[in-house]
Amino acid sequence: MKILIKGTQIISMAENQPKVQIGDIAIVDEKIDQVGVVSKDFKADKIIDGHATITMPGLVNAHTHISMSLMRNYADDLPFWPWLTEKIWPIEANLNEVDCYWGAKLSIAEMIRSGITTFADMYFFMDHVAKAVKETGIRASLTRGIVGGEQSHEKIQEALELRKNWHGSCEGRISVELAPHAPYTCDAEVMKSILDASESHDTRIHIHLSESRKEVQDSIDAFGKSPIKNMLDQGVFDRPTFAAHCVHLSDEDIKILAEKKVSVVNNPGSNFKLGNGFAPVNKLIQAGVNVALGTDGSSSNNNLNMFEEINLAAMVNKALEENTTVIPAYTALKMATINGARALGLEDEIGTIEIGKKADLIIIDLEKPHFYPRLEPIASLVYSAQASDVTTVLCNGKILMENRKILTFNELETFEKADACAQALIKKAQEA
Amino acid sequence: MKILIKGTQIISMAENQPKVQIGDIAIVDEKIDQVGVVSKDFKADKIIDGHATITMPGLVNAHTHISMSLMRNYADDLPFWPWLTEKIWPIEANLNEVDCYWGAKLSIAEMIRSGITTFADMYFFMDHVAKAVKETGIRASLTRGIVGGEQSHEKIQEALELRKNWHGSCEGRISVELAPHAPYTCDAEVMKSILDASESHDTRIHIHLSESRKEVQDSIDAFGKSPIKNMLDQGVFDRPTFAAHCVHLSDEDIKILAEKKVSVVNNPGSNFKLGNGFAPVNKLIQAGVNVALGTDGSSSNNNLNMFEEINLAAMVNKALEENTTVIPAYTALKMATINGARALGLEDEIGTIEIGKKADLIIIDLEKPHFYPRLEPIASLVYSAQASDVTTVLCNGKILMENRKILTFNELETFEKADACAQALIKKAQEA
Repeated sequence: MKILIKGTQIISMAENQPKVQIGDIAIVDEKIDQVGVVSKDFKADKIIDGHATITMPGLVNAHTHISMSLMRNYADDLPFWPWLTEKIWPIEANLNEVDCYWGAKLSIAEMIRSGITTFADMYFFMDHVAKAVKETGIRASLTRGIVGGEQSHEKIQEALELRKNWHGSCEGRISVELAPHAPYTCDAEVMKSILDASESHDTRIHIHLSESRKEVQDSIDAFGKSPIKNMLDQGVFDRPTFAAHCVHLSDEDIKILAEKKVSVVNNPGSNFKLGNGFAPVNKLIQAGVNVALGTDGSSSNNNLNMFEEINLAAMVNKALEENTTVIPAYTALKMATINGARALGLEDEIGTIEIGKKADLIIIDLEKPHFYPRLEPIASLVYSAQASDVTTVLCNGKILMENRKILTFNELETFEKADACAQALIKKAQEA
Repeated sequence: MKILIKGTQIISMAENQPKVQIGDIAIVDEKIDQVGVVSKDFKADKIIDGHATITMPGLVNAHTHISMSLMRNYADDLPFWPWLTEKIWPIEANLNEVDCYWGAKLSIAEMIRSGITTFADMYFFMDHVAKAVKETGIRASLTRGIVGGEQSHEKIQEALELRKNWHGSCEGRISVELAPHAPYTCDAEVMKSILDASESHDTRIHIHLSESRKEVQDSIDAFGKSPIKNMLDQGVFDRPTFAAHCVHLSDEDIKILAEKKVSVVNNPGSNFKLGNGFAPVNKLIQAGVNVALGTDGSSSNNNLNMFEEINLAAMVNKALEENTTVIPAYTALKMATINGARALGLEDEIGTIEIGKKADLIIIDLEKPHFYPRLEPIASLVYSAQASDVTTVLCNGKILMENRKILTFNELETFEKADACAQALIKKAQEA
C-alpha cells in the first residue's frame, strides 16, 4: 500500500531536518519512503489532503496500565492508601482476562483518538492486552508487572512466556520487556532473578521508581539509601532501563540516572492527582537524562491524553522553577515522541518522521479557533492544541483512524463491553 | 421560544438540588422554567435529545483579555520582561478597534466551543468587544483596563462612557465594571478617582493583584506592605472586588481577602506559563474566600479552555499540598460556575441550573472512550472531559452552538479576519 500525505506542515522531530516544513510524505507499506519533496513518479494508492494540517510523529505514551481504564472515575479524591487498598485492590482481585482485554481495547480507542501510536504497558493478563494490540493495529511495549512474594518465580516465567509468544510479532508492532514493579514490591532476590532473565533474554527493564515521598523515606529507613541508589547497587541499571515517575530525587539520584543512561518517564497528571508532587524534569534534562512522557493508568489521571501531559510538562515546570524559558515547546514535544521512542529502545524505528522509519504519524486539523492566528506551529501544538484536533492516525503504515473514525475495530462494541466488565467488577467488589 | 432538553444527566451546581439527577430542563425565552420533572403540558418549540449527555451550567471565565488572541503563539518561552516589552507592547502600540473586534470574536468562537457562556474581560477598545458580544450572543462583564499616567482621567471617562452605553444592554447580557489594572500601574491618586467613580456609579472592581513575586517585593520595598494590604488601606476592597491571580499571598493577605469578601480569580494556566508559580487555592478556600477560575489572555496560556483550567485546579493543588483530597472534583466545578458568577456579581442570574435563572447551559456528549465506564459524572467532567466534548451551548435561552456548529455568526470569516489583523500587526511591529 502506497499512501501520500500532500501539502501538510511537517514537524519531523528529526535533528537533521528543519523544525517545520511544508511538504508531502510518501509511505510505502509500513515505512516512510520520502519526506518533503516527493518524486513525481510516486503512484499513491491513497492520497490524504494535508491542507491546513500539521503532520507529526505519533505520540509515545511511555508508561501506562491500560486495562485500569475499567476503574476510571470510580474512586477519586480519596487519600492514597484507602484508594489503593479499599477501592482498587478489591477490583483487581476479581479481574480476569476478559476484563483486561476490554479494558485494554477501550484505552486503545482513547489513545488512537488522541494521537498515541505507541504505548508501554505494565499489568497482568498481558496475553489479552497483546491480543487487543494485535487487533487494533497500535504499537506497544508490553510487560507483565512482577510483584515479589510466593509466586514471583511463576510470574517471571509468565513474563518470559509472554516474550516468547509476542516479542517482534504483529509485523514488529509488539515488543516485550521485563518489569519488576518497584523496589518496594520486589526484594533483592526477586530482583536478581528478573535481572538474570533480562540478561539472558536481552530485555529492557520497565520499573516504577521514587514515585512518592513515603517510598523514598521507607527506602532510606530500611536500606540507608534512596530507591535509585538501591537499584544501582542491585545492578538494575546495568540493564537498559526506563523508570516511571522519579518524582522525589536527590542530586545524587539524578547523577546516577544520567550516568547509567536510565530513561525517566515523567507522568505529571498522575503525580499531581495522586498528590505525589512535581518531578524535577528540568534538572533531569539539564543533567542529560532522556526524559519521556506517560499518562500512567487512567484510574489515576483520569484519561490517556498525551496532549494534556505535553501541556503540563511545558507549563508546570515553568511555575516550579519560576522561569518562563524552562521546558520550551519543542522540548515538551520531544519528550512525547523521540524521547519516548528512545526510552522503549525503538529510536531507530519510530519517534521522528524520517525516511526508512516506520510510518507512525498523526495528522492535526488546524481549522479550529485555537489555532488562529497561524503563527508558531510548535508552540500551537504544545500550548493550544487539544487531543480532539487529531483527525487521522497511521501506525506501521496502516490508517487506524481517518477523519476521527476508527477503522480497525468496533468502537461502540468496545465501549459497551468495557462498561459491562467494569459494572460487574464493581458489583462484585461491593458485595464482597 | 420554548426549549426542552430531554433525558439528560443534570449537574445543577445548586446547593438545594441533588448533585446529579436524570431529567429534563424546560426553558422559556431567556429563563429556566422547570428542572428535573417537566410538566406534560409544556409545549416545546424545540426539543434537544439529552440521551448520553450531561447538562451543566455554562462556564464562567472570570478573567481574560480576549482580544489578545491576536498574539497567541507569537512569542513563547521567553523571559517575562523581553516577552512583554519587546514582543507584546510593540504589537499593542499599533492595535486598533478593528483588531480588537476580530480578536474578540475569534476568542468568543473558541470560548463557545469550549462551553464558556460568560467571560470577564479587561482591555481597551472595549466598545468593539461589546459589539462582538452583542452579535455573538455570549454574556460578558466588560472593563476598560485603566493604567495610570497622563491620560488616566480620560481613561476613567472612557470607562464610564462604556458603562453608560452598554451596562445592562443586549437583553441584560452585558455588564460593565471598572478596572484599575494593578497597584503597580495605578498610583493612589488614580486609584482614588476610580474608587470614587465606582462608588458613584455603583460598579464592581476588576483588578490584577499579587501576580508575580517581583510585584509583591516591589510593593514591600516601596510601601512597606503587600499589594493586598496596600489595596485594603486605599479602600479598594470597600467596593465589591474580584482580583485576578493572587499567587503570592501571606497569611495576612488571605485573611484580608476573606474578611473583605474579595473574590479571587485563579488563573493556573497563565500563572504556570508566565513562570509566576502556584496560587494557594486550597488555603484561600479554607479561609472562606470565593475562588473563581479564569484563562487570562490567550497570549499567555495559549488558549481559552476552561476545562483545562478546571483540570489544573483540581490536579495541581493536590500535588502542591501532597494531599489527594484537596480541591475535589465538585469544588473545581464550583470554581468554574457559581463561584465565577458570584465574583462577577451575577450569582442571582447564572452559575447554576435553577428555576428562574438565565438559561446559560452547556451539553456534553458522553459517547467518547474517556467517558467509559460510566461511573462518577462529576469526576468525569473534571478529570476526563475535553472542551471538545461540549456539543451544544445555550446563553440567555438562545442556542449559540448546536452539535458543534456555531449558529450566531460566521466562524470561518472570523478566523480569516483575525488572522489578517494579527499578520498585519506583526509586520508593522517588525518594521518599526
